[in-house]
Amino acid sequence: MKPFMDDSFLLHTPTAEALFDACRDMPIFDWHCHLPPKEIWENKPAKNLTELWLSADHYKWRAMRSCGVSEDKITGDASDYEKFKAWAACMPRLIGNPLYHWTHLELQRYFGVATPLSPATAEEIWNKANEALAAGGFTPRALIERSNVACVCTTDDPADTLEYHELLQKEGAFKTKVLPAFRPDKALAIEAPTFLPWLRQLEAVSGETVDSYGKLKAVLLSRIERFAAMGCRATDHAFTPVPYLRMDDAALEAVFAKALRGETLTADEAEGYKTELFRFFAKEYARRGWAMELHVGPMRNNNSRMFQKLGPDAGFDSIDDPAIAQKLSRLLDSLDEENALPRTVLFNLNPKDNYVLASMLGNFQSDEIPSKMQFGSAWWFGDNIEGMKKQLSDLANLGALSYFVGMVTDSRSFLSYPRHEYFRRILCNYLGGLVENGEYPAELETLKEIVRDISFNNAKNYFGLVL
Amino acid sequence: MKPFMDDSFLLHTPTAEALFDACRDMPIFDWHCHLPPKEIWENKPAKNLTELWLSADHYKWRAMRSCGVSEDKITGDASDYEKFKAWAACMPRLIGNPLYHWTHLELQRYFGVATPLSPATAEEIWNKANEALAAGGFTPRALIERSNVACVCTTDDPADTLEYHELLQKEGAFKTKVLPAFRPDKALAIEAPTFLPWLRQLEAVSGETVDSYGKLKAVLLSRIERFAAMGCRATDHAFTPVPYLRMDDAALEAVFAKALRGETLTADEAEGYKTELFRFFAKEYARRGWAMELHVGPMRNNNSRMFQKLGPDAGFDSIDDPAIAQKLSRLLDSLDEENALPRTVLFNLNPKDNYVLASMLGNFQSDEIPSKMQFGSAWWFGDNIEGMKKQLSDLANLGALSYFVGMVTDSRSFLSYPRHEYFRRILCNYLGGLVENGEYPAELETLKEIVRDISFNNAKNYFGLVL
Amino acid sequence: MKPFMDDSFLLHTPTAEALFDACRDMPIFDWHCHLPPKEIWENKPAKNLTELWLSADHYKWRAMRSCGVSEDKITGDASDYEKFKAWAACMPRLIGNPLYHWTHLELQRYFGVATPLSPATAEEIWNKANEALAAGGFTPRALIERSNVACVCTTDDPADTLEYHELLQKEGAFKTKVLPAFRPDKALAIEAPTFLPWLRQLEAVSGETVDSYGKLKAVLLSRIERFAAMGCRATDHAFTPVPYLRMDDAALEAVFAKALRGETLTADEAEGYKTELFRFFAKEYARRGWAMELHVGPMRNNNSRMFQKLGPDAGFDSIDDPAIAQKLSRLLDSLDEENALPRTVLFNLNPKDNYVLASMLGNFQSDEIPSKMQFGSAWWFGDNIEGMKKQLSDLANLGALSYFVGMVTDSRSFLSYPRHEYFRRILCNYLGGLVENGEYPAELETLKEIVRDISFNNAKNYFGLVL
Repeated sequence: MKPFMDDSFLLHTPTAEALFDACRDMPIFDWHCHLPPKEIWENKPAKNLTELWLSADHYKWRAMRSCGVSEDKITGDASDYEKFKAWAACMPRLIGNPLYHWTHLELQRYFGVATPLSPATAEEIWNKANEALAAGGFTPRALIERSNVACVCTTDDPADTLEYHELLQKEGAFKTKVLPAFRPDKALAIEAPTFLPWLRQLEAVSGETVDSYGKLKAVLLSRIERFAAMGCRATDHAFTPVPYLRMDDAALEAVFAKALRGETLTADEAEGYKTELFRFFAKEYARRGWAMELHVGPMRNNNSRMFQKLGPDAGFDSIDDPAIAQKLSRLLDSLDEENALPRTVLFNLNPKDNYVLASMLGNFQSDEIPSKMQFGSAWWFGDNIEGMKKQLSDLANLGALSYFVGMVTDSRSFLSYPRHEYFRRILCNYLGGLVENGEYPAELETLKEIVRDISFNNAKNYFGLVL
Repeated sequence: MKPFMDDSFLLHTPTAEALFDACRDMPIFDWHCHLPPKEIWENKPAKNLTELWLSADHYKWRAMRSCGVSEDKITGDASDYEKFKAWAACMPRLIGNPLYHWTHLELQRYFGVATPLSPATAEEIWNKANEALAAGGFTPRALIERSNVACVCTTDDPADTLEYHELLQKEGAFKTKVLPAFRPDKALAIEAPTFLPWLRQLEAVSGETVDSYGKLKAVLLSRIERFAAMGCRATDHAFTPVPYLRMDDAALEAVFAKALRGETLTADEAEGYKTELFRFFAKEYARRGWAMELHVGPMRNNNSRMFQKLGPDAGFDSIDDPAIAQKLSRLLDSLDEENALPRTVLFNLNPKDNYVLASMLGNFQSDEIPSKMQFGSAWWFGDNIEGMKKQLSDLANLGALSYFVGMVTDSRSFLSYPRHEYFRRILCNYLGGLVENGEYPAELETLKEIVRDISFNNAKNYFGLVL
Repeated sequence: MKPFMDDSFLLHTPTAEALFDACRDMPIFDWHCHLPPKEIWENKPAKNLTELWLSADHYKWRAMRSCGVSEDKITGDASDYEKFKAWAACMPRLIGNPLYHWTHLELQRYFGVATPLSPATAEEIWNKANEALAAGGFTPRALIERSNVACVCTTDDPADTLEYHELLQKEGAFKTKVLPAFRPDKALAIEAPTFLPWLRQLEAVSGETVDSYGKLKAVLLSRIERFAAMGCRATDHAFTPVPYLRMDDAALEAVFAKALRGETLTADEAEGYKTELFRFFAKEYARRGWAMELHVGPMRNNNSRMFQKLGPDAGFDSIDDPAIAQKLSRLLDSLDEENALPRTVLFNLNPKDNYVLASMLGNFQSDEIPSKMQFGSAWWFGDNIEGMKKQLSDLANLGALSYFVGMVTDSRSFLSYPRHEYFRRILCNYLGGLVENGEYPAELETLKEIVRDISFNNAKNYFGLVL
């Protein structure tokens, strides 16, 4: 029996251990996360473990709700200690859940606590962790630096001022690069109630009046240039579902005018607008060598009652299951035909889509860079041992795993960097297993290069990161 | 090499064995099965192994057809011994099939036969089994009691008289609780040729004339009350596909009137009726604390020629593959919005839907009970080692496995209880593996509690079973 | 640690090794491949390893593109040695990809080279292989014979002359049977630009004018008879997507006339034509005892730019994801109802469809032959260790694996026969594992019979091959 989460955690062969030794100290390039630049800038220490763990993490909220915890101990008025105890009581019941491992990796790596968290150990761990917090080293920037993070890409709207990015970049003291990533979901969501308020925000940040589709593109282009000036290398789009319906400029102007008047668009009108504005964005990304992330598959805000109470991103999202192959293929092809397909990372939330995406990559590769088209790491609901193993072997079977740009935290938490370690362990165990089974020669130098590349170097090259 | 199906069957680590020891003797609560209450009441002994095994089991019929057995030895006029020999001849060819294990578990547990069944051993096993049958202990109730079954929920239509349930509940001698479960599929199938005949049956059992949608609801409510009086705790709906189209009462009355006149409904009319009548049912379940099972995914009666000959449930069903996420989510949300979503167990037949359902649970949990929303065990075509392992780890990754309500036989056979043992072995092997791999601490008392809960206690609490 | 790809490659237990010993020397019946009969007849030796490996293999082309190789070293003007070196440079980066294993199996089995291919070993292996090529034994027929191939079914259009088949069958010297397989995809693709040119070709080969749908069927029937005379036993259809829309003869004539006039058909017109012409074919197959292969799931020619440059089958296909269950079931049922469903092998490209197909088989089995309905081996993107293991266990769980007709190369390459060895190793490891785990008795004679049947005998019986 292996001891619980010791140094060989998830590493089941000597080769796996040797490979992990070769990449465990590689820096982290977290090119997709949801850390708020404002919080990184303000750099306030957390007041206790509940604030660090439970104040904003909808993964944990969901798990607590699954365990029957009442909402007042999740997002409500209960004290921080009550909330912590509620989480501790869930822990032993979350056997097999990645949150069990993330929690203990965080306790081990940041607090030196190796004891499993449970109702019996909750008080002791609460005290120990809060002592550590009081002793310092738990501000956002301290946590990022302690985690050996070379660069973080946050998630930013075109209408964002990027003011905290500016401040962070002026600041000489912070070693870790913090770059904005361009995520114009609200620009595309023309049918949503958020659209007109977003447009007002865009007008405010740009000082321009956006009264036509042509003007919208012009203003968005100026924002792209602003992001470029701030060092942006990554962009992100969430599709639910994937749009593909071509529309000419006259029709687009009419659709935009209709939206401006607050009228309800037809499904086709919205799809045409999304298709063409997305294509506009993609061409601008390609022109600048930016990489584009496409996230496909969430179904959001499924609980209307709780949405009224808590708003979005509160743990009421799940996985959608539409067919995606045809439209996504045509959308990418429409860009490739114009030599305007940027480097693209395809992420799917529904594991039924793994083979669709991992095989689609091969249709659009190029000699611009190895694996210009990437299959994104298992993400959100898929970010667990089985999901990550399957993403790795599916990519290996259908593409070239060695060029994979690897893991991202996709997280709002400053404690989430051990997920990179988790990923590296799973990766090394998978590759080590191939070698131990006689499926790949025991060429350790090559293998070490591969795991180091997937841990860091590939992403660095892919996104053109200059350190 | 492990011996064939010995005491450590499917248990590959010492921890797995220890966990199975902790739960093997837990009682069984078989909250979803198709045992006919009439047969339980009449309690007739089977005359031979063919009657027990092959007279009604469409799983075995399908397997025999896959092996090229002619229909006369399956559902036809061949002698019982010929049919048994035909099954015995299939056996060695069914390597890797769960029927291979179920058959041998049944031989071992009920007949003390450890010899693998094959053409060479068929005669000896036939004789031995029939001697055992002749010696007694093989009536339906004897088999249920020998299997340590605390409670069975049968599957009953609102138009059923429940007369055998009444008789069974008066009977003091039968230790095992037999409760009706409410399954109003025929009430929802307004477009099917079965609808009007079913309505006549409902009128007969209720003594009421059902001439309007309003009246239908009233009569169904009286049946729900009748089921409640008989101790009903579970309900069941099969969706193919999931309906979600809202309709007001006036429209519902018009649709119902049209159906009464024998006219063909449009797809939308049928979907609106199904949506709203289902919502009516669900609210009544919620009011009574009944749990609701939703079974999604079968495609039935695919062979028209054999349907003419044998009718439904004869082994000609397979797996459908529609998108289900959107409508199912909105249907559940429409109930949750009115605080009228009952405890719900979501079952999918198509494994592509595992992640859709297991993630959807999290949108509707509550503090009423841990894991109010459940992901049902792998079922029918999924009821095999791989399918069950995957259902368990998918639930563990996305929810709280410890609160899982566990296994059901879903069977028409009085010999099928070893499927609970099969499930418990797979469960213990999975959890034992996590511990042996260092993914969960070796806290045996907690682990034993978890496997006992999943084996019995969780379902007892969830369905509010009073013993 | 197991040595790299030694004799026990992929065999992880003694039982697995014993089973592989029992089937490794069974002949190969490659009942679905894309070898050109012309090349078999002409029997020209390859001039070097690049010609053998890289001149026509779009699997390798895709892998090279994923590794960032420029097109001139793939399909372009670079020298053969440069192309070989480009492939060698990809090799170590393709860890976990089946091409890594196929390449080394081919080096080991045909060239006696055990050294892993990499940039460091490229020159040595190039020289060694080319020396072997120069020494002879590498013509198409020599390669087929050395691979112990009893029979090959090529892929032939109804409009093909079959002239090379005729020549090959007259030739007494070639031991291996080469039979045509009937693949009328172009006859069904009435909406494609290829349709009218194909029709001209059909008129040319038949000497008939095809001016009506009735005449089309008559001419196709004569071609079926021609194929029958040449020993055809297998047929093949690729569906994207599966059609099912019934149409009467008058409507079919109108659709055909419209197509003849070069007018654009509606989606329904094309689907009706495809449904009915397919049904016509299937009935003729059933009449002759031919087996029918249905391939479902590819999405072809996704890169318009490269399609302009290289045409089809150049590595720009991927996996589609439509729902398939309903229409496929009704299509098969429409034939079964008329007792005209031929032996059918269902192949899916998208692994999400495994359970849909493997369960659908059971709806249409018969006592004509065990497992008349077959679930085809994991294919194309699925033809890898995980994909093949999953196809085997999915079939075992839902059908009768022992009657499986087994592996096909589906290849254009004369070096691809080790894929049968690869398959047999995976099969033997799977079955050996069941035995070692105590899930099947250690009845070695039965087990050896099963692996020999799946390796060769089942396919021989199923296709009615006379040697």
